[in-house]
Amino acid sequence: MSDNIERIKLANNKYAEEFGNKSDLEIPPARRLAVLTCMDARLEPMKFLGLELGDAHIIRNAGGRASDDAIRSLVISTTLLGTNEWLVIHHSECGMERFTQEEMGKLLKERLNTIEGEFVNWLSISDRIESVKHDAMHIRNHPLVSKEIKISGYLFNTKTGELQEVITL
Amino acid sequence: MSDNIERIKLANNKYAEEFGNKSDLEIPPARRLAVLTCMDARLEPMKFLGLELGDAHIIRNAGGRASDDAIRSLVISTTLLGTNEWLVIHHSECGMERFTQEEMGKLLKERLNTIEGEFVNWLSISDRIESVKHDAMHIRNHPLVSKEIKISGYLFNTKTGELQEVITL
Repeated sequence: MSDNIERIKLANNKYAEEFGNKSDLEIPPARRLAVLTCMDARLEPMKFLGLELGDAHIIRNAGGRASDDAIRSLVISTTLLGTNEWLVIHHSECGMERFTQEEMGKLLKERLNTIEGEFVNWLSISDRIESVKHDAMHIRNHPLVSKEIKISGYLFNTKTGELQEVITL
Repeated sequence: MSDNIERIKLANNKYAEEFGNKSDLEIPPARRLAVLTCMDARLEPMKFLGLELGDAHIIRNAGGRASDDAIRSLVISTTLLGTNEWLVIHHSECGMERFTQEEMGKLLKERLNTIEGEFVNWLSISDRIESVKHDAMHIRNHPLVSKEIKISGYLFNTKTGELQEVITL
């Protein structure tokens, strides 16, 4: 067992002991909210948005990008579980700003001896304001997204903890 | 401004005021860990795994499924930010167990008057043990995933808070 898993098992035993009435939460998000943001280890979206457990679906990937899979998740979120407001949140100092499509393909070829990396769209970011706008609009215009859903886009500042409003659609 | 956004702005102002030394965290996850789990509003993966801010990448989608986009995120996580251990965590009472591919296509046709929903793989779950195994193995065998990465799969019990080990690869 790895060190990580050993520590996780101990921590989870403690968590389960103190679980209490969290088991009473309903499946549909209480605030009818879904949040799409980055996987970055420094982000705690529930806390920086002031959300409680049970309030919102939290979708996270590299960059917080509106990939087909993020849209799959959002469409399930509204169609089956009733969310009607979605937030797209990218952030400063994102790892996705530090490489290009070409560099990623090259790195993977060097390390894994495969050209498969060239066929993946890595969704790197060159301008974070533009990426938020692009992704919010991409979701807004998607054929599987109801026009009744409120969509807005934000940037989270990893140096100050502040959210900056970018777009409301 | 919606009620949600109004409350979020107030909460975020408070969060930013108390942000303190969180801005000192490094970008690469301290425990070299990445976690793939479900967007479900009742899950707090950092807490049920005993992780601290900065420890791990957290990737979340509908079901915690090993979609192409989850794999994009995981490959970026290791290639650019050095994670070497990945956990796949599905859970009990998942919304993804409550519909089929066909039902989702039908619902979207009724609500949005489009057949686009029939062309999306919604990645619903019929057996949660099998879905964890499948996804862990799918990642393990992916051409863009290094054999040196430790991969394991778990189920989170939403009634007790306990993690159940399913597979280690």
